[in-house]
Amino acid sequence: MAAETEPPFALRGADVTIVGLGLIGGSLAWALRERQLCRHVNGVTRRPESIGEALERGVVDWATTDLAAGVGGADIVVLAAPVRTILRQIPLVATWLKPGCVLLDVGSTKEAVVAAMALLPSHVQPIGGHPMCGKEKNGLAAADPALFEGAPFVLTPLTRTAPEAVALAEEMARGIGAHPMILEPGRHDRLVAAVSHLPYLLSAALMSVALQVGGTDEALWALAASGFRDTSRLAASDVQMMADILLTNRQAVGEMAQRCSAALERLAALIARDDEVALKATLSPLQAQRGGMFQGGRS
Amino acid sequence: MAAETEPPFALRGADVTIVGLGLIGGSLAWALRERQLCRHVNGVTRRPESIGEALERGVVDWATTDLAAGVGGADIVVLAAPVRTILRQIPLVATWLKPGCVLLDVGSTKEAVVAAMALLPSHVQPIGGHPMCGKEKNGLAAADPALFEGAPFVLTPLTRTAPEAVALAEEMARGIGAHPMILEPGRHDRLVAAVSHLPYLLSAALMSVALQVGGTDEALWALAASGFRDTSRLAASDVQMMADILLTNRQAVGEMAQRCSAALERLAALIARDDEVALKATLSPLQAQRGGMFQGGRS
Repeated sequence: MAAETEPPFALRGADVTIVGLGLIGGSLAWALRERQLCRHVNGVTRRPESIGEALERGVVDWATTDLAAGVGGADIVVLAAPVRTILRQIPLVATWLKPGCVLLDVGSTKEAVVAAMALLPSHVQPIGGHPMCGKEKNGLAAADPALFEGAPFVLTPLTRTAPEAVALAEEMARGIGAHPMILEPGRHDRLVAAVSHLPYLLSAALMSVALQVGGTDEALWALAASGFRDTSRLAASDVQMMADILLTNRQAVGEMAQRCSAALERLAALIARDDEVALKATLSPLQAQRGGMFQGGRS
Repeated sequence: MAAETEPPFALRGADVTIVGLGLIGGSLAWALRERQLCRHVNGVTRRPESIGEALERGVVDWATTDLAAGVGGADIVVLAAPVRTILRQIPLVATWLKPGCVLLDVGSTKEAVVAAMALLPSHVQPIGGHPMCGKEKNGLAAADPALFEGAPFVLTPLTRTAPEAVALAEEMARGIGAHPMILEPGRHDRLVAAVSHLPYLLSAALMSVALQVGGTDEALWALAASGFRDTSRLAASDVQMMADILLTNRQAVGEMAQRCSAALERLAALIARDDEVALKATLSPLQAQRGGMFQGGRS
């Protein structure tokens, strides 16, 4: 059975198919191809016009709109659509994958994906993945083979995943310049709820307040400077992608929203009662922690 | 009386004294001097060691730690300390200012400052100001003569302020590359509560959640990527400066914190009940509005 359940191949000799040539899928395909990390990089895309664009820019060796044809002969298949599309694709592609095929996804939440992967037939080697990088611009047009450089690439293997498949995914992550990091899916989802989904919700809530106030006083828009720009940046993210993320991570997102509301209310209460000493005592450790982060890069 | 209550001078021939050579004061002095917008640029600083630094870098023509000596002969005095220091300085400097002197401040909230300015003797021409720019780095070391380029520079004249004094402040704002914008102080304070003070509170609340979650799971810090970096950036701001701002704008900050809590709770409720249609309908106009902002610069 080992030949059927463990990947018998090296990354360098593998045919890789990326399903979904958006920002993440397109960047991944391009990075694999540019760095010659595998034998062939193939793409599956919903939009026929993306085939020509992907070939022209050198993102893939070959592309198709036919999911079955795209994943059929592949040694490694990477699902790179929004999370709930990935959830629909997992049982669908299973029938076409060849024995020993490694099925990786790069969706932004992992518990639901790994639960769907657990139901796959035993000849497939599933593993969850989440490269922690992105832009507000989406689609193949924004793809960048350097997108993953220096970024954490979370991997969430299942208990059934062969060590060789995990090693292959780690090799791929390292190959594109990312730092692989093995995490349990629930732990991943709770942590990204805090560092990624909550920041998005705060950006959206901030934009909501700006629209309320700016709706009756247009001067607001002229006064929005760099602080507003950075804090509201995530609100420009793709809505379908974010809805997929938030709705597949409801419990952890709810916990973080509640923690944040409580923190905001504590700060507002200290301001309302003009308590300078307690306000500064609350803000100082936050300032110290944030001041020490992201050293070396743009702060 | 006109000679005593209206500025009888042009900006080009004026002696300007900046009180406080931090990021804003130092940048303003340097911009005025570099662009040769006035006759002399003098500085008042608390720290004796800043005098040499300011002179060496060409930020001022002359500097002193003696407030009376620094403001005594000036045609224009600009108060550039944290807001509540400005509030203490306004009655103090009044006794030393010469007749017709224009007293401008560059503090981040305007109602309290303008109220203090209203009590000044009639030989002074007071006007509130707020250049809408900044960095998280503070102090003279971070000063930059290009800091004001393209930024709005809010001016809040009092009813007693002579049109000539307003025109002089507008000329100074334009001279350093900013866009002067006349606003009523209360209106200014409410708008900046939405676009500046609320973003700071959200950054601080986000860091508070990160410290809670990261305190029991260190992997959080490794997962904090560009979205977290930008949304939490303002939490690194100087705590004394922010306390001064928040505590002199309590009512408007309270209003905006409440609006934002409500917006966050609405989003959290839609997520909790898995309402994709309503969630996307709420997020889409926020995305459209934010997507259309800050075009041309870094988004």
